[in-house]
Amino acid sequence: MSVLQSAMAAKNASIYLAAVSTSIKNNALQAIASQLKEHAKTIIDANTVDVQRSQQENLPAPLLKRLKFDQARINEVVAGIESLITLPDPVGNTLLATELDDALTLYKVSCPIGVIGVIFESRPDALVQISTLCLKSGNAVLLKGGSEAKETNKILAEIIYNAGVSAGIPENWLTLLETREDVTAMLKMDDYIDLIIPRGSNAFVKYIMDNSRIPVLGHADGICHCYVDKDADIDMAVKVVTDSKVQYVAVCNATETLLVHKAIAPQFLPLIEAELKKYNVAIVGCEQTQKIINVNPATEDDWKTEYLDYKLSIKIVDDVDDAIHHINRYGSKHTDSIITTNKDTAKKFMDLVDSGNVFWNCSTRFSDGFRYGFGAEVGISTSKIHARGPVGLEGLVIYKYKLIGNGHVVDDFAKGKRNFTHKKLHTRCPL
Amino acid sequence: MSVLQSAMAAKNASIYLAAVSTSIKNNALQAIASQLKEHAKTIIDANTVDVQRSQQENLPAPLLKRLKFDQARINEVVAGIESLITLPDPVGNTLLATELDDALTLYKVSCPIGVIGVIFESRPDALVQISTLCLKSGNAVLLKGGSEAKETNKILAEIIYNAGVSAGIPENWLTLLETREDVTAMLKMDDYIDLIIPRGSNAFVKYIMDNSRIPVLGHADGICHCYVDKDADIDMAVKVVTDSKVQYVAVCNATETLLVHKAIAPQFLPLIEAELKKYNVAIVGCEQTQKIINVNPATEDDWKTEYLDYKLSIKIVDDVDDAIHHINRYGSKHTDSIITTNKDTAKKFMDLVDSGNVFWNCSTRFSDGFRYGFGAEVGISTSKIHARGPVGLEGLVIYKYKLIGNGHVVDDFAKGKRNFTHKKLHTRCPL
Repeated sequence: MSVLQSAMAAKNASIYLAAVSTSIKNNALQAIASQLKEHAKTIIDANTVDVQRSQQENLPAPLLKRLKFDQARINEVVAGIESLITLPDPVGNTLLATELDDALTLYKVSCPIGVIGVIFESRPDALVQISTLCLKSGNAVLLKGGSEAKETNKILAEIIYNAGVSAGIPENWLTLLETREDVTAMLKMDDYIDLIIPRGSNAFVKYIMDNSRIPVLGHADGICHCYVDKDADIDMAVKVVTDSKVQYVAVCNATETLLVHKAIAPQFLPLIEAELKKYNVAIVGCEQTQKIINVNPATEDDWKTEYLDYKLSIKIVDDVDDAIHHINRYGSKHTDSIITTNKDTAKKFMDLVDSGNVFWNCSTRFSDGFRYGFGAEVGISTSKIHARGPVGLEGLVIYKYKLIGNGHVVDDFAKGKRNFTHKKLHTRCPL
Repeated sequence: MSVLQSAMAAKNASIYLAAVSTSIKNNALQAIASQLKEHAKTIIDANTVDVQRSQQENLPAPLLKRLKFDQARINEVVAGIESLITLPDPVGNTLLATELDDALTLYKVSCPIGVIGVIFESRPDALVQISTLCLKSGNAVLLKGGSEAKETNKILAEIIYNAGVSAGIPENWLTLLETREDVTAMLKMDDYIDLIIPRGSNAFVKYIMDNSRIPVLGHADGICHCYVDKDADIDMAVKVVTDSKVQYVAVCNATETLLVHKAIAPQFLPLIEAELKKYNVAIVGCEQTQKIINVNPATEDDWKTEYLDYKLSIKIVDDVDDAIHHINRYGSKHTDSIITTNKDTAKKFMDLVDSGNVFWNCSTRFSDGFRYGFGAEVGISTSKIHARGPVGLEGLVIYKYKLIGNGHVVDDFAKGKRNFTHKKLHTRCPL
């Protein structure tokens, strides 16, 4: 099938998938989990081919590590699917019920978005996670993985697709695209694809956003900040900033810039410098920072850079407003934390920092769907509409209005023969 | 100010507007209503200039009618603002609260989107409606109206802006753009504008959607359908289809195509033909329709056309699946109604028709924010994400996650020293 045919077939499948019952979807998820376990050897063999080829092609070690899909990984994704089965179905929930008139009732009911296009690099577990999240939320999915993992992705997609269909999920609910050209084609298919979820590097996500009219759910940069206020508990500040920076540096919710109130800087900066030295964190700082601790100068570019490394930029600010202004200017609307004992200052920071996740007295590293208790996670969104922050199943659904009448016509209301009652109800939509 | 400066100033205003209290916002709305009443004469005079110039420029009569902004219109928009004051504030609602650990609590809190760009044709009341909706939901707004209404828009924007600022709304919360070039510039400012709401013709909305990376809330086409099932109550079907077609033909929720089950067509078609003849509705039909009633042939283009006129296309379908397939192929995801006495058939139709509004035994003309009981309406969206169908205030807000801790760090959880509790709470966010 061409990409166009695949997209049209996915759109058609999505129509029927929208009405598949929770029990069929959960049975399908169970079948997928069983089949992945049963075919573990085939999957591992396919992955070995990918790993060996990538080693010969000198794929860097961290990417090789992410590519590896062994029995431990299989166990992990199976556990993820089993936890997904226990989550409530996000489809078919009555979000609002209003009586408009006698025997004329409006229901707002959650439903799937339709067709999700997913483009991911390297990690084959993303394929399993996102395809099962799409299934649970009743969406059809077009997938394109990285070429390094092509054998692994192929066998995973085949197992997942077949297990789904055998359990009653409509045909063509999942399609694996093969080439880079397929992705270019997919980005143009706004008639058939409703949402694109890219998982990969900043440059990769930006490319997707710049080359498609289809809405994109995700984030490019993750430039997160900690702001240590003048009223901060200093010991707490050292602990939270250190965790935010070094607990895992290669991720989007790690802190890249530390903002420090000028009144507390002389006392705080030497302490954080000493602590971060233990982890070999390279520090660059603004002019005022350089007067207090011995660091290299930070340039304008540092405030815009996601290091993803043992490196931190520090800026001294006049007050919380200055900190808020810096974050809204240079941040990526991802996650920013204030450390203070002053509730009013915390409230101001949390209200005025325009990010999906605003924290008080805790590490930016908490910004994550699993830590938030969402179970499964589609990704983290820095968008301003639809879904923001860590996105679970609810980011894969929308709603439709169902209006049930008994021959009602607008003309009767326009002529004043009937009047709207607009009475709030607490009933589920009967169909 | 240039458009860039206006957009940057609006973004800055939006940050502070996000934290303005409900009472200040409602006072501002009250001040706007008072000032509009007080300056009625100035507004009407400005409108007279617009109307006279437009008459000289031979603006068509229906557009002239929409342009007119007299005392009655002023009373209408003032009544609208007063009703908006009574609606609950959509900002600051706790949507979810979860204990992650002792003294570590996650809140999901509704907040404004940021800066809304609104582009509207002709009707000056759109300026009043949308700017006050933006204010109530805490969003800054950039407005561009049609040039026919430029004097009216200018005075309305001035009154609304000043009344808002005098009541405590941040400066630059509203800016009226002046030229067509300003719109072109605005569509490129995705760094500062978070959402575009276009109100106008199909071609106009499509142009906006094709020329901006900023998300667009609205609809281009409104190709709505009625499907008369084999199990329909024939009298009800005649009544509902007639209302859907003729109650007001120039609007997006009027029915453009009638689908009729082949088993009921011989009985139903002559009746609907006779009824629609009373309103001089021109009918085109498929081949099978032409065998039953004397109508002109419909072409492929008819299924894709929004007539906005006393014209209807009719197609005979094999069954409800055929009807669903036609609607999903040719419709515009707006509003579609089934007339049937069979609940299972209705359920299938409502589940599988991929439109924002799916109706059973009632007129497509009910698809409207006021009729739905939402009070104020931003517009009707045919998007698949964020907001769908008639959009009220809730379409102008999103949410942020606020995490409140006491020095919590991820490392303690990673090392197993602490465990997530993920306990659902029913408390409001304390800040």
